[in-house]
Amino acid sequence: MNIGILTIGNELTSGMTQDTNSSFIARELHAQGWGVSAVITVGDDRDAIGGGLDYLLGISDALVVTGGLGPTADDITTAAVASVFGLDLYTDGAVLKQLKERFDRLNIPWTENNAKQAMFPEGAGIIDNPVGIACGFSLERGSKPVAVMPGVPVEAGKMFSDGVIPLFRDKISYREHIAKRTIKTFGRTESRIDQALSHENLEIPGVSIGFYPRFPEIHLVVTSRGEDRNNVEANLRVTCERIEGKLHRYIFGYDDDTMEGVVAAFLTDRELTLSIAESCTGGLITDRLTDVPGSSVFLERGVVTYSNTSKVELLGVPSSIIEKHGAVSEEVAILMAEGVKRLAGTDIGLSTTGIAGPAGGTGGKPVGTVFVALSTGEGTTCRRFLFRWDRRRIKEISSQIALNMLRKFLIGVVD
Amino acid sequence: MNIGILTIGNELTSGMTQDTNSSFIARELHAQGWGVSAVITVGDDRDAIGGGLDYLLGISDALVVTGGLGPTADDITTAAVASVFGLDLYTDGAVLKQLKERFDRLNIPWTENNAKQAMFPEGAGIIDNPVGIACGFSLERGSKPVAVMPGVPVEAGKMFSDGVIPLFRDKISYREHIAKRTIKTFGRTESRIDQALSHENLEIPGVSIGFYPRFPEIHLVVTSRGEDRNNVEANLRVTCERIEGKLHRYIFGYDDDTMEGVVAAFLTDRELTLSIAESCTGGLITDRLTDVPGSSVFLERGVVTYSNTSKVELLGVPSSIIEKHGAVSEEVAILMAEGVKRLAGTDIGLSTTGIAGPAGGTGGKPVGTVFVALSTGEGTTCRRFLFRWDRRRIKEISSQIALNMLRKFLIGVVD
Repeated sequence: MNIGILTIGNELTSGMTQDTNSSFIARELHAQGWGVSAVITVGDDRDAIGGGLDYLLGISDALVVTGGLGPTADDITTAAVASVFGLDLYTDGAVLKQLKERFDRLNIPWTENNAKQAMFPEGAGIIDNPVGIACGFSLERGSKPVAVMPGVPVEAGKMFSDGVIPLFRDKISYREHIAKRTIKTFGRTESRIDQALSHENLEIPGVSIGFYPRFPEIHLVVTSRGEDRNNVEANLRVTCERIEGKLHRYIFGYDDDTMEGVVAAFLTDRELTLSIAESCTGGLITDRLTDVPGSSVFLERGVVTYSNTSKVELLGVPSSIIEKHGAVSEEVAILMAEGVKRLAGTDIGLSTTGIAGPAGGTGGKPVGTVFVALSTGEGTTCRRFLFRWDRRRIKEISSQIALNMLRKFLIGVVD
Repeated sequence: MNIGILTIGNELTSGMTQDTNSSFIARELHAQGWGVSAVITVGDDRDAIGGGLDYLLGISDALVVTGGLGPTADDITTAAVASVFGLDLYTDGAVLKQLKERFDRLNIPWTENNAKQAMFPEGAGIIDNPVGIACGFSLERGSKPVAVMPGVPVEAGKMFSDGVIPLFRDKISYREHIAKRTIKTFGRTESRIDQALSHENLEIPGVSIGFYPRFPEIHLVVTSRGEDRNNVEANLRVTCERIEGKLHRYIFGYDDDTMEGVVAAFLTDRELTLSIAESCTGGLITDRLTDVPGSSVFLERGVVTYSNTSKVELLGVPSSIIEKHGAVSEEVAILMAEGVKRLAGTDIGLSTTGIAGPAGGTGGKPVGTVFVALSTGEGTTCRRFLFRWDRRRIKEISSQIALNMLRKFLIGVVD
């Protein structure tokens, strides 16, 4: 089964927005054992949409369409699809009612142009949107299913997985078994992981391994396919074990795990409390940890001590030490971690100080110099790094390293 | 002039690699005043490549092709293009010599499969690759130029700008002028903005307006096109002025502006200092402001006071007030903003406290209840909100509201 993907929007053809829906959908289709005939991206234009639909229908067994379902005049996908397929539009009363209820619930005033989002081509099935406003719809065109969803990635992602995949599955008589596992690593480049795995026998029939860099992480997606469910699962298990044997030091999680979620779970399980003193990461470590529901159980406080005064007042770092070694130094990083731990009365203190740039570097401490310190009941450790990224990426990788240091301490890994 | 983009690679149609070339090329074409007819992505497959070429040639004045020029067996783009256009392949001696020299210089052993990268369709012009190995080539198909480049983004980017743009320029006598402005709004939904603009005359020839929701913001992109540069710019200006007339309260910036960047610029200009006390936003406000280079000039400190103790110790909020009104209350929000401002000795204090969920709500204060307070030399104001989003979106919209309150204070808007 080969599926065509049509993504629609002037923001895509102008390059203003990176189309991430098509690669997400392609990955999901791939995981189902289906192929992609082609991806076409066109603007919000009746003829371009029509041409793309016709071309893809000619080379595909099914179509996925995203984008152009919003309330404004430039969103014309529903009307274009109806017109290409020679169908009239109708207003779905149940969807209209649901739309108005959603607006009420979200406290958004209803305006009449939104009624457009309750209009569908005759004979369409509705695809619910559990995370947004606009519903999608599905049609059949000469026994080929066509599913149409909004372009907002979080909505399209959820609707595709929950609504479209089951719909497409129903259309296929032959059902392949598929098992998939994402192995999430941090601390090794893609090419070094590739090299580490090159001596391992990973050529198992029906199993493929994909590399997905997600800065600063590298994810490995292992997909196992075949007719026999037990074989499929055994092959997946064996492959993952072989990968784990080579990469265990760099694996922090699987599937939906996040670095902050893993750290939060360990802290919660062990009933340990944490406080954080950030300088160059600017609150990002605390922001990430507080994305985890229930983080108030272990997180006592975070402080972003951007000024020297705040390092003295909130962390008890002596100003003489700052003057002598500089705010970006091993000495200050250690005193920040120890100070926040002591003053917050927590089990663990975590700190960062560095130069995220673009200005502020010196010969001895160039832009990208970062110190990360971890203070626990067993003492305080500090590591120094030099990154060549831009400001945001320096913040991201520094926050990741800090969380990973904490994770390794919690699982008893020393390195 | 409408240009078609064909990107080729199994890594793209499997979703393993995000195709960034097409959006880069689209942006560059757009900047030249040219449009994109469609983007097609296909795998390394002769028929899929042929189909994509044919379709795009039918709807475009020129084609850009990337991917599949490497030395390995799965790279078949050159052969596929030659076959589709009925051309033989030849080995270019000069390119072969240059290739061998490049391998020498990079200390990579030469293997015979690399000779494939010196093969081109008869009549092709060579497009030099100053940053990689594989050269590209150009052909004409019924007076339409077709440029083919490798898929490595850094190589395709350089070759496109240096080699392809000048090539395409030579082919075109008529050059359209294009002017564009992005208007960034916060505080009104897409449909209410649409409605607000519906009574305004925005039907100006050659001008289009696109809506781009970027939670929690809505961006309006105004594009003006035409033959006369002065007209194009005047039409853009008039349209923007009409939009501004209706939406000025909700416009916080233009083009590359960010909310945090705008706030940071105002604070820096007026030499005002800021401290931040965050509870439900968990460090996100501070994280956003510290993404702006130079933020250390105005940002004295941020504190994430997740525990009641930290609100007492770091902000001087009396525990009796927390006990009486609850940590999520107008009283506490106000004392947090005033406390951080006083203790940090800054001109301005900003605070948030709320229930980001999914747990922790009560009847009187359900999940999504958020208080944002701003304390300045003119006093302290606090606003209460109720959001129905998930945890992350509650953090995002709360941080945006806090920054927007600060922005409005800085420009003297009261609401």
